[in-house]
Parts: sequence; structure tokens; C-alpha cells
Amino acid sequence: MRLYDIIEKKRDGFELSDEEIKFFIGGYVDGTVPEYQISALLMAIFFRGMNDREITTLTHTMMHSGDIVDLSEFGSVTVDKHSTGGVGDKTSLIVAPIVASLGGIMAKMSGRGLGHTGGTVDKLESIPGFDTGISSEAFLEQVRKVGVAVIGSTKNLAPADKKLYALRDVTATVNSIPLIASSIMSKKLAAGAHNIVLDVKIGSGAFLKDEEEGRLLAEKMVNIGKNSGRNIAAVITDMDRPLGFAVGNSVEVLEAVSVLKCEKIDDLYTVCKALASNLLSLCHGWSIEESEAKVDEVIKNGTALETFKNWISAQGGDISFVDEPSVLGKTDFEIEITAQQDGYISGMDAAMIGKTASVLGAGRETLDDVIDHTAGIILKKKTGDAVKKGEVIAVFLTSKEDKIETAKNMFASAVEFSTEKPKDKPLIYGIVK
Amino acid sequence: MRLYDIIEKKRDGFELSDEEIKFFIGGYVDGTVPEYQISALLMAIFFRGMNDREITTLTHTMMHSGDIVDLSEFGSVTVDKHSTGGVGDKTSLIVAPIVASLGGIMAKMSGRGLGHTGGTVDKLESIPGFDTGISSEAFLEQVRKVGVAVIGSTKNLAPADKKLYALRDVTATVNSIPLIASSIMSKKLAAGAHNIVLDVKIGSGAFLKDEEEGRLLAEKMVNIGKNSGRNIAAVITDMDRPLGFAVGNSVEVLEAVSVLKCEKIDDLYTVCKALASNLLSLCHGWSIEESEAKVDEVIKNGTALETFKNWISAQGGDISFVDEPSVLGKTDFEIEITAQQDGYISGMDAAMIGKTASVLGAGRETLDDVIDHTAGIILKKKTGDAVKKGEVIAVFLTSKEDKIETAKNMFASAVEFSTEKPKDKPLIYGIVK
Repeated sequence: MRLYDIIEKKRDGFELSDEEIKFFIGGYVDGTVPEYQISALLMAIFFRGMNDREITTLTHTMMHSGDIVDLSEFGSVTVDKHSTGGVGDKTSLIVAPIVASLGGIMAKMSGRGLGHTGGTVDKLESIPGFDTGISSEAFLEQVRKVGVAVIGSTKNLAPADKKLYALRDVTATVNSIPLIASSIMSKKLAAGAHNIVLDVKIGSGAFLKDEEEGRLLAEKMVNIGKNSGRNIAAVITDMDRPLGFAVGNSVEVLEAVSVLKCEKIDDLYTVCKALASNLLSLCHGWSIEESEAKVDEVIKNGTALETFKNWISAQGGDISFVDEPSVLGKTDFEIEITAQQDGYISGMDAAMIGKTASVLGAGRETLDDVIDHTAGIILKKKTGDAVKKGEVIAVFLTSKEDKIETAKNMFASAVEFSTEKPKDKPLIYGIVK
Repeated sequence: MRLYDIIEKKRDGFELSDEEIKFFIGGYVDGTVPEYQISALLMAIFFRGMNDREITTLTHTMMHSGDIVDLSEFGSVTVDKHSTGGVGDKTSLIVAPIVASLGGIMAKMSGRGLGHTGGTVDKLESIPGFDTGISSEAFLEQVRKVGVAVIGSTKNLAPADKKLYALRDVTATVNSIPLIASSIMSKKLAAGAHNIVLDVKIGSGAFLKDEEEGRLLAEKMVNIGKNSGRNIAAVITDMDRPLGFAVGNSVEVLEAVSVLKCEKIDDLYTVCKALASNLLSLCHGWSIEESEAKVDEVIKNGTALETFKNWISAQGGDISFVDEPSVLGKTDFEIEITAQQDGYISGMDAAMIGKTASVLGAGRETLDDVIDHTAGIILKKKTGDAVKKGEVIAVFLTSKEDKIETAKNMFASAVEFSTEKPKDKPLIYGIVK
């Protein structure tokens, strides 16, 4: 078998056999196939696509390139969620304790933020003492005890995907539905949960810009999951504005806590409820309505908050911040950003707001950058809100005085005003299962 | 400027600026841009194409990456021809002396054969003493004296093209019209002739399989030539069967001599006449009819043969073979191949016949292979000819006894028979100028 023939075949629109897919991934991982051939093949896949069998084989080949987490001791109630990435997305912090309160077992691996998007691991690390790097044994022991644990990805989870993603990232071949689907699913399948809910985000702050693309990606991933014997559903949600009001790390943890405290029930809770109830429905066979009612119940009666506290402290975190937010620390500066005109906020470029928070210290450009967990943005107004000239629409939290002007300009370019109230847009576009 | 952005731009169907094209070629040549990014860009170009400005800029950038041959001392009558490659294509050996007999100055660089196609340099080297590696000074001195010289390409002629071609060759990005056009034209322009005729071959023995593709490539190359201030035309010719009857090296030289001796006036001469008369028309402003009459004249009156002999001996070759073919040597075996049935030859896969000749010793798979100049195939029948079962249709010339069976099977697979006479196909599809 020669990689040349595989490139040519895909270039000309033919489907690759399972053996050809295994050959290219295997050869790339063991270094017998040069990167310049792999990148040419990736670009051919970008243009020609892959059918469901090819995508499933690619996913399984990458999944089996490293460790597979064994959660069989927990039976069929293991759960996982995955978001395609957004701005202000703290849903994992809320969904995990809700589902764990209702019999789901959440043994989850999460990522760090990069570029304009945040990552659950960074957010959790803004809690003093919280350890995202506990051993596999400690991880499983905690899951047995509390029903929930969240750690950073281990190095050996789908290493083929890690290597391939690094090449896609420098060859403009990231935005390909079959490659995105197989990348996400190889890691999700290797992480071992039986029930998976995917949060496919679309809009200005997401990798996918329109609903059609989002639906296609959701269908491909759900299909892979089913072909792999998992229960799976995808919720297509809006990321044309940040989710909730907080963008950063400690500020997002605090916003998550206020939802768990039933203090703040808005767009953020709507998305969390959709994700959690779909997971519970897959996990227990409950109807969506039944699941939703139970989600509301564990929020209202404080069970989810209790589970959250148990989880955080089990993993070494100081939970005193739940009642005393100042424990998480604060930035040197709090800068109020005001509206430049009367009217309505007609649009918020979520990616630009994410980048602005990153400049203020909350994010990183490369994985080696150090982040400031206390930095970020608190939005006071969102898309659709009426504003008066001079009214505060956001507060910047930062200790980087020299970045404030740049951040102001970036933020200003992200917010659009109109004289008429903009049309409401859906928060949830649909569910694929 | 980042190569990533250039890949993404081309991937999404936008045209690249002149600066972007210079950046990618420059970065590739000096090693500051990795091969895996270049190959992804090449595949994006394969799918998205390039417009005429982009192709011209790419051509000029590669042309200027090395030496430019200065033929200005010869004025505006310098000529060059280029074939996109075929089987049995010995036209340069005939066209060069014809045109030089009629006032054209042919200071030509040629290539070696590879795969199923032959190369003029290999053919000339089957003449004892002929030196294809003479110095630039000796080359120009000979041109001044005889009006014609043919040498192998110098290392520093369009080195960027050489490097890019090597990468295209292993990433399935050779067959792209803009990349083929710029590759050929960068070398032709650097070689310095003012008048250029391209022989664009189409059919089973050519890189391009159909007329439409051939016409498109011809148009692109003619356009580049005109944009570069050259006189240029392209003749689209048939390569669905070998050209002439001889396939090999010394056998092709002998066939060329028999045309120059006016002994053998057939399909081979028709193509040579079209190429030569178009060159003369560009060079002197003569009409095609006038040019054709003069071509016939120098063949009939022996002037072209005299020029051929002067050229060969000026370049060190022993011209006694012109009257005594055995000087070129012979193979150990001459194997007659006979028809398996009565009927007509309805098709000849020219590429397979080229590969068969290569297996018999006439060609090479890699540029390091040593070839047997005396090996090859003499066809006795061609497409359209009536044959009787047992009649000789070809003779294999080889010294590789162990390859004869393989070659027989290959040849058998290349020849198709039918009971009815096949429809005649054109030899010349058209002229683009």
C-alpha cells in the first residue's frame, strides 16, 4: 500500500477502504509516512469529504491509537458531555452536578482554553486547591464516592488525533466536518462513557457559523456514536452571543454557582437544562419532560449545589468561595464600559468578546501562556437589551493596565447597536438523536 | 505574511496576490516554509485552480529562481519546441535540423525519459560520441556555427520548479493545469528562445487524456508566453497511439534519419511538419502554407539531413550511422510478436507500450536507472491496420531475456482487436496561438 495512491483516490472523489484509513493513521503515528503526504491527503478530504463508514473507521482508528478508559464497573449510567467550544460556556460546571445528583456517573476529561474559547480545566483551576491532574486511580475512586470527577485529558487519550490535529491546525484543514467529527468522537469514545450529549454550537463565537453546518456535524457525530454502541444525542445551541454574562475563569465559576443556587435562571440555565435532561433521558430512559422536571427539582431543592460542593472538595478545592466569592481573588482594575449611543444592542461578536477577555488575561494564544484566573469580562447587557448612552454595558476585570485600551477597542468592534429592537433568535436550534 | 493564510485563501477559492505567490515559492526554496504547508497549498490549487495572472506570476517567480539563458546575440530568430511527453516522440530530432536549415536558431535544452515516456537527451546519447553535457560556452559556440545544439537541462534552470515538481510528484498534485502550465513555461522562458512551439499531446500515452484538457493547457501556456513577450503557438496532437513505428532510443534516432532522408513520410512527418512550420511562421512571419512548402523542400533536397549531420558531428557524434545503422549496436534478442486473431487493430494503449519498451531496457523507473540504448520496440502494425492471425505486429529488441515474458503480456494487454475497421481519428486536433 502506498500513501500516494490513497491521496490520489481521495483527490478523485473515491471512498477509502478501512485498510487505507488504518494505513494512513498508522503510518503517520509511527513516522513512516511523511507529513507532506498527510497534509495533502487532509486537504483532499477537506474538498471531497468522507462517508459515514470512512468517518467511523477514522474515529475508531484514532480512538484505538492510545488508552481506552474502562468505566465498565459503573454499568450503563456513565455520562459525558462535550461542547464544540464557545465563549462564556460554563455548562459543564452546572450539568455535571445536576446529572450526578440524579444517578448519572460523570467521569469526565476536559480541555484547556485556546484562542477565543475557554476550557473547563482552566475554570476549575481558579478554585484554590482544585487539582485537575489527579491520578487515574484517584479519579476513579472519587467517581465511586461522589459520582463526578473532572480532570485534564491524559497524554495518551487518542494520541493519533492529537498529532493529526496539530497538522490540521497549520495547514488550514481544521474546518472539515468529517475531520472535526472524527477528532471529537475519537476522544469521547476513548473516554469510555456510555451516554454522550454533544453541545454543537453555531454562530459568531463558534467554529461553525451556520445552522446547516451545525446540523451536519451533529448528525455525523451522533451516527458515529450509534455505530459504536453508545447512547448519544446532540443539542444544537446558539453561540452568536456569549452564553450567560460572565466570560473568564473565576467569574464563570461564580456564575455557575449562582445558577446552582437557583439565583440566576436565564439563557445559561436553559442550555444546561437541555443538555442535562437529554443526558438523563439517554441514561435512564426517562422522557425529556420527566427529565426536565427532575433537573428543575435538584436545582430548586439545592441537591445539585450540594453535589457540586462535594465534587469540588473531593478534588481538593476550597469550597468557601461558594458563600464568599472574594476567596477567588480579584484583579487590580475594574473598568466600566459604557454605551456610545441610545438604542438596542443588535449584535455581539462572541469570538471578539472571547478574544478581548483573553487580552485582559483570561485566555491564552498558545498552550504555554500563563493565564490570570481572575481576569475577564462581566456583561451587563446582551443582544436585544435596550441601552442608554453612557449606561454600563460591561465591566472589564484585569490586572494588565497596558492592555485596557486595546481591549476597549476590541470590545467596541464586537458590539453593534440599532435604533430598533432586534428580532429574537433561538437559543436552541434543535436536537439530533 | 503567513503561509497558513495563503492556504486558507486558496482553499476558499480566492485568488492569491503576486506577493503571496512570491512568498510561498521563496519560502519553499529557502526552506523557511515547511513542506507540509506547501503540499496542502498545492492540493488546494489542484481543487481551486489559478487565474491567468496567478499562473503568470507563478511562472515568472519560478523562472527567476535560477539562471536565465541569454540568447540576445541571435536576435529574434531563436526557436524552441516542447512536448508534454509521449511514446515514440522523436520530433525534436527532425524539427531542429529542419528549422535550423531555414534560418531558425535552436539552442535547446531537453530532458531524459522517465516512466513510460522517452527523452531527447537519451535518444541523442545512443549516437556514439554525442555529448549532451557540453559547457555553456561550447553550447553557444556551436549554435553560432551550426544554428543548432541540444543539451541536457542545467541544474540551475528554474530550480524552484524542480523542487516543487518533486513534491507534486509524491503528493498527487502533478495533474493540475495551472501547475503543469507554470512548470513547463518557467523552464521554457528561462531557456531564452523568442519563438516557442508547444506540442500538447492527448490520449492514452499522454499525461492529459482528453482534447478539452489539452486545449485548456495549451491556452494557459500560450497565454503565459504572450504575457512574457514571446511568440508562441501550441499544436494539440494525438498520443492515443505511439508516434511513428519505433519506440526506444537508437531505433528512434534511425526512424528520425529515415524521415530526414525522405524515405518515410507518414504520421510522424505530419506532426513534425506542423511543429516546424508553426515555428517558422512565428520566427519569420511567413504564412503556414509558405512555411510548410519550405519544410517539404528542405526535406526533399537533403538540406535538413545535412544540417542534422553537421549538428551531430559538431556535438561529437559519429555520423557514420546515418549510412550504416549497425554502428548504433544491436540487442541480443529480436522477438517477433504476432497477432492472436484476424481483424483490425482497434486500439493501442501508448502508455503501456512505452512501459513495455522500458521493461525491455529502453527506459527507466527512477532517474538513477541505466538504460540500454539499443533496446525497444519496432511496431509493424498500428491502430487501424488489418492483421491476420499469426502476422507479425511488432518486434521486441532486448538483451534482457528474463523480461521477455513480462513484456509480451504487457504488450498483449496494450493492443485491442476488432472485426471491423475502426474510425480514423485526427492526428492534429488544433492549433492554439
